[in-house]
Amino acid sequence: MPTLSSRITSLNAGGGDGWEIFYKARALVAAGQPVTELTIGEPDTKTDPAILAEMHRAASAGHTGYAVVPGTPALRDAIAARVTERSGVLTTRENVLVTPGGQSALFAAHMAACTPGGAALMVEPHYVTYPGTIRAAGAVPHSVQTRPERSFFPDPADLRRSAATSGASSLLINTPNNPTGAVYPRETLTGIADVAQEQDLWVISDEVYDTQIWEGAHLSPRALPGMAERTMVIGSLSKSHAMTGSRIGWLIAPEAAIAALIDLATNTTYGVPGYIQDAALYALTADATLEPRVAEPFRRRRALAQGILAAQNTVGLVPSGGAMYLFLDVRATGLSGIAFADALLDAHRIAVMPGESFGPSAAGFIRVALTLPDAEFSEALSTLAGFAAGLAKAA
Amino acid sequence: MPTLSSRITSLNAGGGDGWEIFYKARALVAAGQPVTELTIGEPDTKTDPAILAEMHRAASAGHTGYAVVPGTPALRDAIAARVTERSGVLTTRENVLVTPGGQSALFAAHMAACTPGGAALMVEPHYVTYPGTIRAAGAVPHSVQTRPERSFFPDPADLRRSAATSGASSLLINTPNNPTGAVYPRETLTGIADVAQEQDLWVISDEVYDTQIWEGAHLSPRALPGMAERTMVIGSLSKSHAMTGSRIGWLIAPEAAIAALIDLATNTTYGVPGYIQDAALYALTADATLEPRVAEPFRRRRALAQGILAAQNTVGLVPSGGAMYLFLDVRATGLSGIAFADALLDAHRIAVMPGESFGPSAAGFIRVALTLPDAEFSEALSTLAGFAAGLAKAA
Repeated sequence: MPTLSSRITSLNAGGGDGWEIFYKARALVAAGQPVTELTIGEPDTKTDPAILAEMHRAASAGHTGYAVVPGTPALRDAIAARVTERSGVLTTRENVLVTPGGQSALFAAHMAACTPGGAALMVEPHYVTYPGTIRAAGAVPHSVQTRPERSFFPDPADLRRSAATSGASSLLINTPNNPTGAVYPRETLTGIADVAQEQDLWVISDEVYDTQIWEGAHLSPRALPGMAERTMVIGSLSKSHAMTGSRIGWLIAPEAAIAALIDLATNTTYGVPGYIQDAALYALTADATLEPRVAEPFRRRRALAQGILAAQNTVGLVPSGGAMYLFLDVRATGLSGIAFADALLDAHRIAVMPGESFGPSAAGFIRVALTLPDAEFSEALSTLAGFAAGLAKAA
Repeated sequence: MPTLSSRITSLNAGGGDGWEIFYKARALVAAGQPVTELTIGEPDTKTDPAILAEMHRAASAGHTGYAVVPGTPALRDAIAARVTERSGVLTTRENVLVTPGGQSALFAAHMAACTPGGAALMVEPHYVTYPGTIRAAGAVPHSVQTRPERSFFPDPADLRRSAATSGASSLLINTPNNPTGAVYPRETLTGIADVAQEQDLWVISDEVYDTQIWEGAHLSPRALPGMAERTMVIGSLSKSHAMTGSRIGWLIAPEAAIAALIDLATNTTYGVPGYIQDAALYALTADATLEPRVAEPFRRRRALAQGILAAQNTVGLVPSGGAMYLFLDVRATGLSGIAFADALLDAHRIAVMPGESFGPSAAGFIRVALTLPDAEFSEALSTLAGFAAGLAKAA
């Protein structure tokens, strides 16, 4: 076999640790053992039948040929209207590229913002694909650490230092945040905007959890003064409408960037199925109850968790405002996140993600997904808290 | 706005000429003028209702969550079985990556085979996205010209010279060919295989028209001795099953390459909708009449064209064995392909693609798609032939 490009053979090098727990849980499931899965980052509801009915209607009506690469005009307009309404920034069809999922938009944004071999900043802890996505785009990921005592909000001074020393051309942020649930407040975003303008950075803002806000309000950095021209926003219907498997998302960017990104899409994906775009248009515009129906169970389970955790004092609940996860501080047990997750899986067949899987800033934490039915979720969380208390007493 | 990466701002630089004719025709259509479109590279049939029904069944049954990134095991197995049967090369699930369309597979193959700044060969004339796809993967496209008097088959001596002087790591071929309809014979493919082994090239073989064979037989270079380890094959359901809009295809490669390509897919697309994969599985396995029903109209119209062109001697029909196009030699009119296409559009509102749009080797030729209903197609071709005869007489 001829050589493979080193670009694609080292994509996942140096990624987060602790994924062996995830795979150990999967292996137990595959072997028929009952495992309580608190690792799953997708809604436990299926895509609404009304959305699927619209998809079938569009396909049966003949929308099965090539759709135009940038996205159908109707869907681009609907996304632009939604972004305008939510952010207050006038957004038109020419600012929108429809993509086959948020991951594809993340990759495309870095292809646009980074030069081969150049540096790209990302705030850590972060979603698992971020370093690989930056490497796939030929750039070099540089982590900017955050601290639990600052609620995992990035410190603008750290960003400034990292940007200046690395010469980065982009900064990837994620609010509401996976894994921490952090919803960045205005002062954090203003600090990010200041650094971006000083250091001439693109801000790539992953906002795929923007419909899951439990406290405070979501603010996009694109809405801050001077930022629309240097911000690319990633959106998706995966989390907001339980459409993970449909692979449909979008990228919002300045018109000139979208024009070039359409050329990139022509050569890398050739667009998104038209009937899925028609279904997405329905999901975004036809029934305003679809979105809250997907988000509501997470809000409810978060409240259940707050009640359970208030009754003990071993496990700390990181104050968070959004996303479908709890981020828990288990340092009082004396264990790392990895060791705690492994011990919990062995003792109680409950699978959680070690914080370390999302980066070293999250050492001693675990991520718990809000994606199990209420009763099962509550029982698992009570068991987890009791298990942690036992460890803390022994420590 | 910060700088955009030059990678994405120059993707379409230096592409083929003559696309102004295509856009001129589109503008006429948009203005409400009747245009006979012989430019369209997708079947004029819609996706079969049985395939769409299976898609809806799968989605309604709950297959709406994340599918595994490499593709569902059942679809990978079905593709592997199909490739084994058709090529005679033992192919397993581990050799298959399901991709969101053939274009995505083309891009991924070049990401795997090329290093940033390295050279990538492509046989010319070629499908319009080839140079941009190679550039998007960070490599530099090098055309290898072909000659009409050799039926547009590449000459191994030319390939050898281009590979040696450019230091290329890959060679992109396409058989059956768009635009020429050429089906490469065994001796051409053996020559390609010899050069690939001498020069340590990956062969990237675009075989998306392999179900449209009118004369001779399709042979994949992967089936030649020693070639399975250095060949990546692009396949798709777009042309074979009229599923262009569903964006589903595949890449066949050595196991070690697929393992790395799965990492790339995780970071660039995150897989293909599960319900589309279920529909694809149905299309490939449930009803053996689906494929011939899509191909049959092209065979029939090709025969109609042969009859019409036999009755005149201005327009030459390039001898071809496959694909949904006719490649016509209009050099006897004294016009270039571009000038002929432009004059034909002005005089008769018939739109064809100039050969030059696919590369300079095809100067003085035009591409005619077999994608109009028989009567309309025959009438357009008769008009075209008469128009050419008039030009030739005047010349």
